[in-house]
Amino acid sequence: MQFEITKESIQEIQQLIAENNNTSLLHLLSEVHHADIAEIIEEIEIDEAIFLIKLLESDVTSEVIAELDEDTREKVLRGLSSKEIAEEIDELDTDDAADIISELSEQQKKEVISHLEDEEHAKEIVELLRYDEDTAGGLMAKELVKVNENWNVLTCVKEMRAQAEDVSRVHSIYVVDDNDILKGRLSLKDLLTTSTRTAIKDVFIKQVDSVNVNDDAEDVAKIMQKYDLEAIPVVDEMGRLVGRITIDDIVDVIIEEAEKDYQMAAGISQDVEADDTIWELTKARLPWLVLALFGGFVSVSILGGFSEAMESYPVLFFFTPLIAAMAGNVGVQSSAIIVQGLANDSLRGSAWNRLLKEVSQSLINGFVLAALLMSAGMFFLGFELKVGITVAVSLVSVIIIASIIGTFVPILLDKRGIDPALATGPFITTSNDILGILIYFSIAKLILGF
Amino acid sequence: MQFEITKESIQEIQQLIAENNNTSLLHLLSEVHHADIAEIIEEIEIDEAIFLIKLLESDVTSEVIAELDEDTREKVLRGLSSKEIAEEIDELDTDDAADIISELSEQQKKEVISHLEDEEHAKEIVELLRYDEDTAGGLMAKELVKVNENWNVLTCVKEMRAQAEDVSRVHSIYVVDDNDILKGRLSLKDLLTTSTRTAIKDVFIKQVDSVNVNDDAEDVAKIMQKYDLEAIPVVDEMGRLVGRITIDDIVDVIIEEAEKDYQMAAGISQDVEADDTIWELTKARLPWLVLALFGGFVSVSILGGFSEAMESYPVLFFFTPLIAAMAGNVGVQSSAIIVQGLANDSLRGSAWNRLLKEVSQSLINGFVLAALLMSAGMFFLGFELKVGITVAVSLVSVIIIASIIGTFVPILLDKRGIDPALATGPFITTSNDILGILIYFSIAKLILGF
Repeated sequence: MQFEITKESIQEIQQLIAENNNTSLLHLLSEVHHADIAEIIEEIEIDEAIFLIKLLESDVTSEVIAELDEDTREKVLRGLSSKEIAEEIDELDTDDAADIISELSEQQKKEVISHLEDEEHAKEIVELLRYDEDTAGGLMAKELVKVNENWNVLTCVKEMRAQAEDVSRVHSIYVVDDNDILKGRLSLKDLLTTSTRTAIKDVFIKQVDSVNVNDDAEDVAKIMQKYDLEAIPVVDEMGRLVGRITIDDIVDVIIEEAEKDYQMAAGISQDVEADDTIWELTKARLPWLVLALFGGFVSVSILGGFSEAMESYPVLFFFTPLIAAMAGNVGVQSSAIIVQGLANDSLRGSAWNRLLKEVSQSLINGFVLAALLMSAGMFFLGFELKVGITVAVSLVSVIIIASIIGTFVPILLDKRGIDPALATGPFITTSNDILGILIYFSIAKLILGF
Repeated sequence: MQFEITKESIQEIQQLIAENNNTSLLHLLSEVHHADIAEIIEEIEIDEAIFLIKLLESDVTSEVIAELDEDTREKVLRGLSSKEIAEEIDELDTDDAADIISELSEQQKKEVISHLEDEEHAKEIVELLRYDEDTAGGLMAKELVKVNENWNVLTCVKEMRAQAEDVSRVHSIYVVDDNDILKGRLSLKDLLTTSTRTAIKDVFIKQVDSVNVNDDAEDVAKIMQKYDLEAIPVVDEMGRLVGRITIDDIVDVIIEEAEKDYQMAAGISQDVEADDTIWELTKARLPWLVLALFGGFVSVSILGGFSEAMESYPVLFFFTPLIAAMAGNVGVQSSAIIVQGLANDSLRGSAWNRLLKEVSQSLINGFVLAALLMSAGMFFLGFELKVGITVAVSLVSVIIIASIIGTFVPILLDKRGIDPALATGPFITTSNDILGILIYFSIAKLILGF
């Protein structure tokens, strides 16, 4: 059913482009979904991509351009004139149009907007450009179906048909008053089953969820997900209907957010993909490694400070990576659970309960691991009891402290408005490494007295 | 607009339950969305929850039960008789109904099904129970609007109205032939604007995406996301229309998948939440810590094997946590990028190119970090040049090797059908720790010759 994107089909397309065989290309791609054409574009050279974009109809290519990776899109658009870009924008819904225009330079923005055909469309796009991309306003489209509460069903159906021309999918019909204030919604079903002379006032549903134009995109995602909404109307500060957000845009927000958290946990700042340039990837990765390196220096100094132990208990130094690793692992586990709880609002109960739970869990984990360590250490590695006890006591303490830090750092970050996912990355591993080693050698000094 | 769930509102509800004040409770909750009632239920005691469920109308409580966390739902259902559960199930769409019934014991399953009112509904639920929950069949609902290609628009509208009674949201009207084979779809818009005597055959759209009932849920999610679909029909091996999947179920699949990857990266197996019991959390966390502990033993042995270096170059042992941490961090970064590339199908180009890219990046990172290390180490920590060179060379080698492993382990796991996200967790950190230490001391031995 879907066009199969294989090495061969890509090569065939590239061959046809090289031959300037427009007829075959048009025929081959006529039935292909724009999302698939976008995938093809990502695979071929930019020159070839621009050739294809210019060849195909703009009602298809506009959607293709909207689907592209930002990097690829930038390169492709560089190959088009402002007029050509405007022709693509003309075909797009306002939200996609605004997204693309916002990526252009100030100069080009003006040029493209001045070339737009439909003035109403242009005005709406310009309005959308005002909103921050992480807000409801940045996500919404102006395309929607709205009716006046003072109309009757007949007028309503007529008006709807005209409006529906511009709207690819009708989710809800919104009802507004003469001042454009959102009053409620109308179900298609009711509209189909009511007499045509009934006043809209008498049939519409007064309960309608809506979000404010300045609401955070993530909050909009949470609301739509919680209430299983497929579209939500957006109102301004005066309650006037200014746009609507559909679930497909929310799916993108959810995926982006999840990817960001995951990357953060892996010590990758910025949004990168495997196919970004080496330079972009390095920029996203190196800062965290530098942080980890400096953390490493601190542990070198701490170990240096305990160097007198080397003569009497050299074996202690063999255990430092083990202690550090356990501290890091436990810390990341604890903070990941908190970060996820914060993300899906499932974190309940007081901080005190949370602490108690974390400590009890750490005690269980700590004792099991300490017992394993003692038995393995003494039977297989053959070190003396005093050292065994030292390492075991350190292990339990380190696990408890790492889990407490792992629990509270993300909560603290979140309270200060910083993304708590930051806490699951190299940041927590590195600080737990350091703390773990410090605790370990302090306990060792106390017990063994070197 | 939405009911505000606060400590106070929860306490008020608990107070009313304690007083058996049914009138006030019903009044207070009459306008509250079922998703909010589900959140209230999660906050209060199970006895109170069961009281509320029995008090409210089953058209509301059925949706509430479908929204609950699996754990809470299990406890709540334990407080209801099979007949009472059946009454709730009667109100639900087949997909939610099947999900809930599948969580019951075999005995209770039979009892609940035997109490279902509508035999057609019961049959459909039983059919859905056959499918694995991770397949299209496990996600789909039987509620959909379908018309026969041999009807005309008038019959179609009549039939649709009858069918639409059972379907909460009409996304598409599916067209089938006499054998129930999916032939295409019909847009509501066309239906509204075509003469009533036109044959469906002449107006329906023949292109329709569909998935097979056995397709993987994750693949369905990818298709719906790629093509921005809000619903997709599901067909069986013979091409017969058997159900449809809506985007809200797919949003849940996407979120679950992202949470699983994130937890895996943090060393948490199984799906746990901050509010699970200590025992469940320990079960999810301890195995990884045991793995890390055994990894730690291996590094203890390796370090023990190089103990002769302690006399001449004790400072080498101060650097082990630093080297191990760098190996772990780099490895996790590399595999996270691959895991994400695999998840969103953006991984392109040959393995050879990927290797080249990873090595070039590691060289850049490695040299920057080694330069930092050399300067900091020699100026501030004051160790001799030979040691500085040893640590620097080791650092670069460890970074390169860790990144190669980080790149190829997830690719390999994926090829063998194992979740590649496994590679970003403690598994890769632990093995990179070990390898890093081994490389470090081997290089040290080579350069310093102890």
